[in-house]
Amino acid sequence: MKIAIQGELGSFSHEAAIKMLPNCEVIPCQGSAEVFASVEKGQVNGAIIPIENTLAGSVAEHYDLLLSCDVFIKAEFHLRIIHNLIANQRAKLKNIRRIFSHPIALDQCRNFFRRHPKIQAVPFYDTAGSVRHVIEENILDAAAIASELAAKEYHGEILQHGMEDNKQNYTRFLLIQNDDHIRRAANKISLVFAIKNIPGALHHVLGIFATRGIDLSKIESRPVRGKPWEYVFYVDLLSGKNKEMRSVLQQLKKSAQFVKILGVYPAAK
Amino acid sequence: MKIAIQGELGSFSHEAAIKMLPNCEVIPCQGSAEVFASVEKGQVNGAIIPIENTLAGSVAEHYDLLLSCDVFIKAEFHLRIIHNLIANQRAKLKNIRRIFSHPIALDQCRNFFRRHPKIQAVPFYDTAGSVRHVIEENILDAAAIASELAAKEYHGEILQHGMEDNKQNYTRFLLIQNDDHIRRAANKISLVFAIKNIPGALHHVLGIFATRGIDLSKIESRPVRGKPWEYVFYVDLLSGKNKEMRSVLQQLKKSAQFVKILGVYPAAK
Repeated sequence: MKIAIQGELGSFSHEAAIKMLPNCEVIPCQGSAEVFASVEKGQVNGAIIPIENTLAGSVAEHYDLLLSCDVFIKAEFHLRIIHNLIANQRAKLKNIRRIFSHPIALDQCRNFFRRHPKIQAVPFYDTAGSVRHVIEENILDAAAIASELAAKEYHGEILQHGMEDNKQNYTRFLLIQNDDHIRRAANKISLVFAIKNIPGALHHVLGIFATRGIDLSKIESRPVRGKPWEYVFYVDLLSGKNKEMRSVLQQLKKSAQFVKILGVYPAAK
Repeated sequence: MKIAIQGELGSFSHEAAIKMLPNCEVIPCQGSAEVFASVEKGQVNGAIIPIENTLAGSVAEHYDLLLSCDVFIKAEFHLRIIHNLIANQRAKLKNIRRIFSHPIALDQCRNFFRRHPKIQAVPFYDTAGSVRHVIEENILDAAAIASELAAKEYHGEILQHGMEDNKQNYTRFLLIQNDDHIRRAANKISLVFAIKNIPGALHHVLGIFATRGIDLSKIESRPVRGKPWEYVFYVDLLSGKNKEMRSVLQQLKKSAQFVKILGVYPAAK
């Protein structure tokens, strides 16, 4: 099974892909648009994409692509994010002067930089890519922050394990595919809708869920391109019975300007 | 009046600052945390910060800082974002091989790169900083994408004006200060609240606004640090009468786990 990810091998998306689909073949892609396009065109069997992190928040670009692309969410997974300091096998922590990583990873390891004020944090486009950079360029006075898998992938040495400030650091990943077959255990539904820009409109729509006791586990707003100060809303609903969900969707289609179902899948434990 | 901004002189924040407060002295700061800290400590009279863009969406870090810092929103402004191709005065468009800018600016000029497939887009930390880079390093085969003000600031030549794909490109800027004096014309209120993680909780809170006909012009969710999959909600309300707003806030304080008023200010036209 071919699974596309955004970024280099050894990334957290790669780690999530292996945990969700142990025997998959992971296909790295440069950008997220490329990942979604390869799923749409059937060049891969699916893709694993990060959608939100418990510290950094939502991945806005992926919300936009879920709306614009013809893909369907089939599963979700919560990955505990563990950051590691990775360097060449001959490198020593006392000689490290610069640490490369994605800005979000650097930001999640602030305490390390406070304890090591002589080490400079250098933003890099990708966590796993920063490991590849220090290893392939054979740099001895620099290290990178990335997953354990990145150390394995590029034969780096882990100088420090679990260097993230906050252990409540999880990223929610989604499996997207280009068919809308629904698994039996599915109990969660993700959808996006637009409503008229009038007072009380959002309250009215949330009432459709609330009056049926359906739990809204996430709501996210994103701007509408070309319509300044108008928004679409992404919601995740924990559905109970199928009958109720059908009634919810009928009501929603009557009240909203448009509705798109992004996926129906089993909620992560 | 000293006004802090994040990033270099010539940035869109600088442009917004001059338009909002024509006679202010603009103080550039490296990071957003530094901007907020200098307002809190009274080292500056205020700061101008971007909070959302009509294409790229919200500036998450600034929402987090509005919650954690002791500052107050005093005014808002909608700046039309016009991207310009800026280079050395001796540079020519036909010789340009690379264009530096902030990733969001590069992304907003995709059509230009489609029309010029031989020119490479190179991500840079700051729009104005990318102009300074090509001018100060005297690079002749590269240009930068930034505001007209950046061209003035660093004596660059504008090779192309208004190169953004979508003209509906606006950024909403806020003036923050460390006192909570409310201007007479104030008719908009920004606040953040947390609610219990139970079905219908958000619907209930939005009902407090809806039943009084108060327009919710924006809602934004952000994760709570250390509590995975819990969120705080930021809302902007267009208030009518003061009496109604007082009743809304009383109700909200009863229903929410916590409420913080971020500012009361005149809505931008």
